[in-house]
Amino acid sequence: MTPTPFAQRLTERSLTLGTRLCLGLDPRLDAYESRDALRQHTLAVLDGCAPYAACVKPQFAFYEALGLWGMQLLEDLCAAARSLDLPIILDGKRGDIGSTAAAYAQAWLMGDHAGDALTVNPFLGAETLTPFVEAAQANGGAVFVLVKTSNPGQADFQGEGVSERVAQVVARLGQDEVERSGSELSSVGAVVGATHPQELAQWRAAMPHALLLLPGLGAQGAKAADLAAAFLPDGTGAVVSASRGIQYAHALDVDAAGAAAKSFRDELNAALKL
Amino acid sequence: MTPTPFAQRLTERSLTLGTRLCLGLDPRLDAYESRDALRQHTLAVLDGCAPYAACVKPQFAFYEALGLWGMQLLEDLCAAARSLDLPIILDGKRGDIGSTAAAYAQAWLMGDHAGDALTVNPFLGAETLTPFVEAAQANGGAVFVLVKTSNPGQADFQGEGVSERVAQVVARLGQDEVERSGSELSSVGAVVGATHPQELAQWRAAMPHALLLLPGLGAQGAKAADLAAAFLPDGTGAVVSASRGIQYAHALDVDAAGAAAKSFRDELNAALKL
Repeated sequence: MTPTPFAQRLTERSLTLGTRLCLGLDPRLDAYESRDALRQHTLAVLDGCAPYAACVKPQFAFYEALGLWGMQLLEDLCAAARSLDLPIILDGKRGDIGSTAAAYAQAWLMGDHAGDALTVNPFLGAETLTPFVEAAQANGGAVFVLVKTSNPGQADFQGEGVSERVAQVVARLGQDEVERSGSELSSVGAVVGATHPQELAQWRAAMPHALLLLPGLGAQGAKAADLAAAFLPDGTGAVVSASRGIQYAHALDVDAAGAAAKSFRDELNAALKL
Repeated sequence: MTPTPFAQRLTERSLTLGTRLCLGLDPRLDAYESRDALRQHTLAVLDGCAPYAACVKPQFAFYEALGLWGMQLLEDLCAAARSLDLPIILDGKRGDIGSTAAAYAQAWLMGDHAGDALTVNPFLGAETLTPFVEAAQANGGAVFVLVKTSNPGQADFQGEGVSERVAQVVARLGQDEVERSGSELSSVGAVVGATHPQELAQWRAAMPHALLLLPGLGAQGAKAADLAAAFLPDGTGAVVSASRGIQYAHALDVDAAGAAAKSFRDELNAALKL
């Protein structure tokens, strides 16, 4: 049986629940009294925020920083997200060449402990994205290629046309699939910082069939009202991530985290006039 | 007590044992009959090849592809390498922004299960390298920044001056440290593909205080004789990685792996006239 493509699952959930929020879960040990507290709170935030989230995005770095115990937590978190029907974007920004890229794809897009989607770093070249894209397409998953990141220093090595060339590759890698399937959205998405609002229309046009993952709202200074251009006319085609502002709302109160997620969802919908 | 800097430990081992080999250990499940066989062979190859190796370089992707069990193997492999006094370069090509980069640095350059050095991907910008460099400098570790990778497609997004600008950042990030310490080599190294032999002198000159990690010999077509320009005049300042050709020598025979490591070492030394 062909698995339902990631973009379709994400879009259906987004429309059913009326949300474009990508819930980031980045457990920082220094915010908690103990590992147990971190574990319980992170899983409770997932549970409490799920009704307001189109998908969940654990950031690998914070789980890796917790050692094997953290990687076990990531597995448990993914299992919990699956039981909530919440699509999982693993934010690992992986990237390597040849059979090494294939091993990363095996690890995170195909295995028992895989997510649904993975963020990937294109620095090593267009060819190095192929193993990720093939694994995603075969398994109803997705990749989100870094096109233009949200941080001030992105221009150092993404400037002078680099991001534009990555965007062309993203569009090309998804093209066959949308022609074959007739879907609006492919398995090859892109990360574009919400901190570049004046460029979002350009990126949307350059990658017409890519799901866009937009980080940088809130802590990094972008405003919801600026993001409409990243979406398709029906309010699909993109999700906006929020992490700290939700997980760490009001001194680790889980109800406050849920309220922050709901408010984030509503703010996005209002800005998009949905 | 200030820990002995990575470059000093690597250089001393390299000169004492007369070797510039960086032993890659990339356990591929499909090469083995079972997980147990993979584990035993990988640890035995480490043991058998250590006398010929300046350092060891586990490639994260292959351990991640084995799930939590693989991450445990990576921890055990690092413990074994430490007991052999073998410096460990974790090949993870990590990279992210701000506190996320700091979490990766915490995970792999500072924690109990850390290595000595980590490969990092500079795509997100110069500022994003700083948490890695600070962690390395504080802990006697090192980072190896991808400057120009060994694969044919590297020019896609590393061309048109990008690699040159990354090299400038590498040189700048290590400059203060060499001025302060008087050492020849800093904690900020670089990955430069051995597949670009005509450029090695240029990269050496652009990053005079960087340890260079040179992948691509053998399977990827580079020749030992071409690599002299990457080294300092005394035969230090660089290591050359080899993985498949050693670990998978002669149908998983551990003696054959040791012989392949020795022969790789000798071939490099002959090419460098050492």
